[in-house]
Amino acid sequence: MDEQPRDPASTDMSGGFVGHLGLEFGEMTGDRITATWSIRPDLHQPYGLLHGGVHCSVVETLASVGGALWLGEEGHVVGVNNNTDFLRGLSEGDLTSTGTPLHRGRSQQLWLVETTDAEGRMVARGQVRLQNLYPR
Amino acid sequence: MDEQPRDPASTDMSGGFVGHLGLEFGEMTGDRITATWSIRPDLHQPYGLLHGGVHCSVVETLASVGGALWLGEEGHVVGVNNNTDFLRGLSEGDLTSTGTPLHRGRSQQLWLVETTDAEGRMVARGQVRLQNLYPR
Amino acid sequence: MDEQPRDPASTDMSGGFVGHLGLEFGEMTGDRITATWSIRPDLHQPYGLLHGGVHCSVVETLASVGGALWLGEEGHVVGVNNNTDFLRGLSEGDLTSTGTPLHRGRSQQLWLVETTDAEGRMVARGQVRLQNLYPR
Amino acid sequence: MDEQPRDPASTDMSGGFVGHLGLEFGEMTGDRITATWSIRPDLHQPYGLLHGGVHCSVVETLASVGGALWLGEEGHVVGVNNNTDFLRGLSEGDLTSTGTPLHRGRSQQLWLVETTDAEGRMVARGQVRLQNLYPR
Repeated sequence: MDEQPRDPASTDMSGGFVGHLGLEFGEMTGDRITATWSIRPDLHQPYGLLHGGVHCSVVETLASVGGALWLGEEGHVVGVNNNTDFLRGLSEGDLTSTGTPLHRGRSQQLWLVETTDAEGRMVARGQVRLQNLYPR
Repeated sequence: MDEQPRDPASTDMSGGFVGHLGLEFGEMTGDRITATWSIRPDLHQPYGLLHGGVHCSVVETLASVGGALWLGEEGHVVGVNNNTDFLRGLSEGDLTSTGTPLHRGRSQQLWLVETTDAEGRMVARGQVRLQNLYPR
Repeated sequence: MDEQPRDPASTDMSGGFVGHLGLEFGEMTGDRITATWSIRPDLHQPYGLLHGGVHCSVVETLASVGGALWLGEEGHVVGVNNNTDFLRGLSEGDLTSTGTPLHRGRSQQLWLVETTDAEGRMVARGQVRLQNLYPR
Repeated sequence: MDEQPRDPASTDMSGGFVGHLGLEFGEMTGDRITATWSIRPDLHQPYGLLHGGVHCSVVETLASVGGALWLGEEGHVVGVNNNTDFLRGLSEGDLTSTGTPLHRGRSQQLWLVETTDAEGRMVARGQVRLQNLYPR
């Protein structure tokens, strides 16, 4: 892994795996990240429900973006753990995910991401532990 | 969530989110699930590394398939938690993931999935807790 | 494990391992559990800091009591997972722990417990997943 | 938290919270830690079963000792997360716990601890993430 500082605010997130998730970012600061997204058939598991890995992936994405924005040009972050709970199975609908920091230290950060449905019910929530890496 | 028994052995996993992951399944029993897959650019995060959410998604998939095969036609499984650790960042290469049960009980199962690279080094590992659901 | 209903409100928690933790319970309902406690030398690890396992144990205790109170005489709960993060090392002081439910369903509950120091700073936080068991 | 190197091999673990757990250590190296212990009434929760927090505490202890031994006099370790699964409820008996490293890097370590009963059945297992701290 390289250890160059990065500027997440100018990062193109329309491609790659993040692009596939279909997130539309709202707030994007080192204190809070929000995104809205929709359940599409190509995010389903074989039985027509939203695949749990999609929830993990959204959690991972928002936490990483938030942690990178907080750290800024001093360094960059890498995820070391993702722990996500699935609270409600869904086959369709629009979701809102919100990431907030639980801990932001010199060497590590811990972010919480919560995903709710259109009625405001909690659908999934997860934590990501980020390691801060600094150029030597 | 419906509560119909399902036959995972005859389930089409070429579409949806599992299809996007590009898993090629090997062993598929209720005791052990293996799959090989390759890191592609559309599985990258914006900085050119494999997105951590892909690891979680592979872990979720193998655990769910293994748990469903073990439960068989008696019921079906839903994931309630996914806890995945990322041990090594990668931008390319072929990976092998292996799922094995840690616990298989009447009401819950706990599966471990480990992913290694072509040199056999551990890249990621995660646990999924599955709830067994039975038709009433 | 027996499967008899229990009445946690009338349970003696002054002995056993809970007694050793030295918790003084405040609110005790199925919606919220609070307790205050103090760091004593016999809760230290060998280097004079509060042992991380004590945090896990407090988290486990409050979550279990809260989940049992919510379920009431219908059944009882058993913990299946405890995931606790340690945010601040301490050698002495008075702490307050608060448990709240993240999810309360027919078969499982998920509780969050947060522990803060006298200045209100988060010291540790953890989640416990409980399985609800009903008499047949 | 101080940042002095420590010599865990010469550390007195007969007192404090570790002493209360009643662990009898066997192998003690940076590659593997073993301990045997017995379920006593003062490790019970109010319903006469081994308290889940005791399992977390044993996991935390073995992982920390193993990580400290591996790091040696270069620095010391602090636990940042403990994630423990409870697989089997018990009211009495002798247990064996074994800690092995899943990852040992410059900045972090991840240890697995498994606890089995006298029949060799898995009773609990947990992971601890340790941060390595070095004197400046």
